[in-house]
Amino acid sequence: MAGQKRSALTRFEKEGGAWWETAISDVAPGRIILRGHRVEDLIGNTSYAGIVALVIADLSLTPRQAQLLEAALVAGVDHGVRAPSIAAARMAATCGIPLNSAVATGMNMLGDDHGGAGEQCMELLHQVVEHSDVNAGARQAVARSLKNGTNLPGFGHQLHKTIDPRRKPLLSLIEDAEARGEIGGRYKSAALALESALSEAKGRSLTMNIDGATAVIYCELGFPALAAKGLFCLSRGVGIVAHALEEMQAGVLIKGPCPPGVDLVRYVGRAAPRNTSGADAASDTQQ
Amino acid sequence: MAGQKRSALTRFEKEGGAWWETAISDVAPGRIILRGHRVEDLIGNTSYAGIVALVIADLSLTPRQAQLLEAALVAGVDHGVRAPSIAAARMAATCGIPLNSAVATGMNMLGDDHGGAGEQCMELLHQVVEHSDVNAGARQAVARSLKNGTNLPGFGHQLHKTIDPRRKPLLSLIEDAEARGEIGGRYKSAALALESALSEAKGRSLTMNIDGATAVIYCELGFPALAAKGLFCLSRGVGIVAHALEEMQAGVLIKGPCPPGVDLVRYVGRAAPRNTSGADAASDTQQ
Amino acid sequence: MAGQKRSALTRFEKEGGAWWETAISDVAPGRIILRGHRVEDLIGNTSYAGIVALVIADLSLTPRQAQLLEAALVAGVDHGVRAPSIAAARMAATCGIPLNSAVATGMNMLGDDHGGAGEQCMELLHQVVEHSDVNAGARQAVARSLKNGTNLPGFGHQLHKTIDPRRKPLLSLIEDAEARGEIGGRYKSAALALESALSEAKGRSLTMNIDGATAVIYCELGFPALAAKGLFCLSRGVGIVAHALEEMQAGVLIKGPCPPGVDLVRYVGRAAPRNTSGADAASDTQQ
Amino acid sequence: MAGQKRSALTRFEKEGGAWWETAISDVAPGRIILRGHRVEDLIGNTSYAGIVALVIADLSLTPRQAQLLEAALVAGVDHGVRAPSIAAARMAATCGIPLNSAVATGMNMLGDDHGGAGEQCMELLHQVVEHSDVNAGARQAVARSLKNGTNLPGFGHQLHKTIDPRRKPLLSLIEDAEARGEIGGRYKSAALALESALSEAKGRSLTMNIDGATAVIYCELGFPALAAKGLFCLSRGVGIVAHALEEMQAGVLIKGPCPPGVDLVRYVGRAAPRNTSGADAASDTQQ
Repeated sequence: MAGQKRSALTRFEKEGGAWWETAISDVAPGRIILRGHRVEDLIGNTSYAGIVALVIADLSLTPRQAQLLEAALVAGVDHGVRAPSIAAARMAATCGIPLNSAVATGMNMLGDDHGGAGEQCMELLHQVVEHSDVNAGARQAVARSLKNGTNLPGFGHQLHKTIDPRRKPLLSLIEDAEARGEIGGRYKSAALALESALSEAKGRSLTMNIDGATAVIYCELGFPALAAKGLFCLSRGVGIVAHALEEMQAGVLIKGPCPPGVDLVRYVGRAAPRNTSGADAASDTQQ
Repeated sequence: MAGQKRSALTRFEKEGGAWWETAISDVAPGRIILRGHRVEDLIGNTSYAGIVALVIADLSLTPRQAQLLEAALVAGVDHGVRAPSIAAARMAATCGIPLNSAVATGMNMLGDDHGGAGEQCMELLHQVVEHSDVNAGARQAVARSLKNGTNLPGFGHQLHKTIDPRRKPLLSLIEDAEARGEIGGRYKSAALALESALSEAKGRSLTMNIDGATAVIYCELGFPALAAKGLFCLSRGVGIVAHALEEMQAGVLIKGPCPPGVDLVRYVGRAAPRNTSGADAASDTQQ
Repeated sequence: MAGQKRSALTRFEKEGGAWWETAISDVAPGRIILRGHRVEDLIGNTSYAGIVALVIADLSLTPRQAQLLEAALVAGVDHGVRAPSIAAARMAATCGIPLNSAVATGMNMLGDDHGGAGEQCMELLHQVVEHSDVNAGARQAVARSLKNGTNLPGFGHQLHKTIDPRRKPLLSLIEDAEARGEIGGRYKSAALALESALSEAKGRSLTMNIDGATAVIYCELGFPALAAKGLFCLSRGVGIVAHALEEMQAGVLIKGPCPPGVDLVRYVGRAAPRNTSGADAASDTQQ
Repeated sequence: MAGQKRSALTRFEKEGGAWWETAISDVAPGRIILRGHRVEDLIGNTSYAGIVALVIADLSLTPRQAQLLEAALVAGVDHGVRAPSIAAARMAATCGIPLNSAVATGMNMLGDDHGGAGEQCMELLHQVVEHSDVNAGARQAVARSLKNGTNLPGFGHQLHKTIDPRRKPLLSLIEDAEARGEIGGRYKSAALALESALSEAKGRSLTMNIDGATAVIYCELGFPALAAKGLFCLSRGVGIVAHALEEMQAGVLIKGPCPPGVDLVRYVGRAAPRNTSGADAASDTQQ
């Protein structure tokens, strides 16, 4: 990775690039241009999903396409306080940092394993659609993942074992959009082929989860896989803000993951020397 | 502040509260409830702005109210690479951290001075509307701020000295919503009264900026002031994601704020001892 | 606060300041100067505590003073997995982000309420030592805090109710240093006076905690109160790194604050609509 | 990566592990045990470097070994305001977030490309020392890196082209420690063999930089490669705290990477529509 990147100096000194070069925005006194549009022309005429597509990936969506993107963003806003991103943001709020820093704390959690399945699923869908026979491509991908002992990103869910409740409404919107010609449907077909191949190989139903269904939408609309974590930040960000704010308003102080009385913590290190100074009791606690 | 918060233990041990208690979401196998709504009923039926209002502040907006909120979120998405939040996220992207961590880096910047004017302006608007005579309340607030030597949060702009280009389209949408009875208009009146009082006191036109105009919208829709930084995170977050992604795709390595050749850095510390080991040259640079 | 800060532009355009101006370091090809010292003269000759004092606060400590600072940094390195800073860093490590980002997640937690007592205690000690009669000053400070219903920062501990085990060894080192003339002892006297006044007012022994004892050391050595959170970052940072690394090496995936089976989570929001889609069961869980 | 990690639930429900399990610390009322030592026995008797080794990697260093580690930590504390980690922390400080959050902002930058060379170099040194002939192993590693077009992590420096000023004093301390039998010297030999092989292959002198020299020390003392980024956080953290604090004390507001007048920013996106609303001027700026 490191070897493939050029030095910032190389681009600046030898290739004539500016130090800060962007195709996203042009800001000057009285002027804010975003991807070639004046901000005053966007306000009121573009939805949030529309501006997300325009600014992040230079995509000009139709209103219906924007609604499809919006549904994907809405679907992932929250998954309860046991999600580490939500819990960390709530704990941060009890430590006395500003709301934006509590949000940053939660965002930082959305890494490869917590928020990365979307990106991996998008890459997988790209592989499958490149195959001349989508079903064969799907079976190969499933076989490869079983051989490596890895999960197929975007399929199955640790909690929602029967089915992820977000799959059906998202898939239904995807099919509507395809029927109207708003999207091509290739990535949807690839995802359904992966569902079949995976369920067959496992001998039980294993269906798309939130990461799989949203990956289909992002692929159909033209987002690059690398954007997936960013889109998830804006989606789950809603829940992160909400939970951090709720905790700030509750007004409690320095809350760790669990209270002292609860038996979830165990010290498995070296035996401590016999305490001669009269320690009080035994339960762990925060501070 | 610290003294006003209760210990988390007090609430848990003495008041019968759960350690993690939330009115936002209820998640179980096959079930995701948000503010009393099943997620499958929200997907496709609620806009991003609608879910923001519902999840963050338990507000059920009409579609037109949601559009007004959406316009506020759209208006603040980006303000160019010289904004520290944007620049920091871009620099992070060149350091080889994941996109979500680059976004967290940018979010962390949206503190009291970079992203806090919205919250302060909402508090100011609440003060003014509580006054029986809004114009008198506005004049008092302006006088207080002049006396303290502080800026009036939400008014004037360092760059857009004549006028913030986002003011007019936002104000126009606010007035439309008021005309349709979607909002009450009290906070809008307060903001206009503050514009007048400030311009009169300063002897030149000083108008609402992006923070002021969005504060009016957030107040009119019923958000608490404390939510403002969170809303700004979701708004500016779009630009933060876009800029970090653009920098990741550019593929340059470890980019600091400015290149070595540019004369923006000055050492003003103690004189260094005479260097006997043959240092090469003089310009500062990044590591 | 905002009103007291100048615009960066004012300093740059009107006062002749450089955009980036520092008295800390001067870096050029073959040259790294820190506070007027060549880095090659510091390596091997200056302890970590010594460089902390030099770089952060431009203090040149004697070796014994540096040892006192070192003891303060050592005392706070860890306080178990229930501390939110430690827990958040561990959760981050299970989400697949790099170690430095997991550390950043933990650092972000050390805000006013979790890591801020040191700074507040330093400010308090400065107030007390300015009083002509330290005991009277201490009694006034205690009375003020009782009247406001706030805790006295740096005194008492939620967990270590009898006594913080770090108080005695730190106080002993402080007294040794005073006996050798390495420090003046004024802040130590102020802290002891506060202990007496507080215990008397409360009718039970309430002694210095880690924040109080380290605040004495930082004050005696000449650090500004504003540096306290930074010093705590470097101290608790050791534990944050250790716990994040242990969790990375354990290799588990996406760990929230508590497992599904444990009854710590409660939904207190609006009743959910009757679920017609056959949700599986009842326990909350992480995503 | 994801596939190799177990679910946290698997360890908890099936393997009898605690949800929070640690060999680092045991905390209870009146008791703080770190790696089997009472904190009161460590305070005053263990240096910062000693506690870093103990807590992070369960290593009990001799005092001289601890001094060697300390020299490595001291060597990397700062590299000027053009380093993105330092610049981001300074910018954060001007945005009005607390010091610890500004520090977190800087820490987040120390990713694979800015702070990752140490870890990569440690892995490289482990590969080379496993070779029966260290010189042959070094030549193979260099050939592999040239073939892949990647830099050899830990060797050469973009700025310090002749030699990194931190190499000589660190190498000298390493050789002293080897002569005294404090370390074995295998990793040092591997690093010197890499220097020779690289310089020969490139036809010019390319020597160890800070990451290479500290990687030798961390390997000789027994740290795992995975700890490298954490150690760098504690080292560079000193400079990050210092610079953020200096910026807070300077009291300027919202400072981006460069001021409006400086020509470092270029918009390369689509042509903006002709502006009919009378924008003032042309230069970009922050907000």
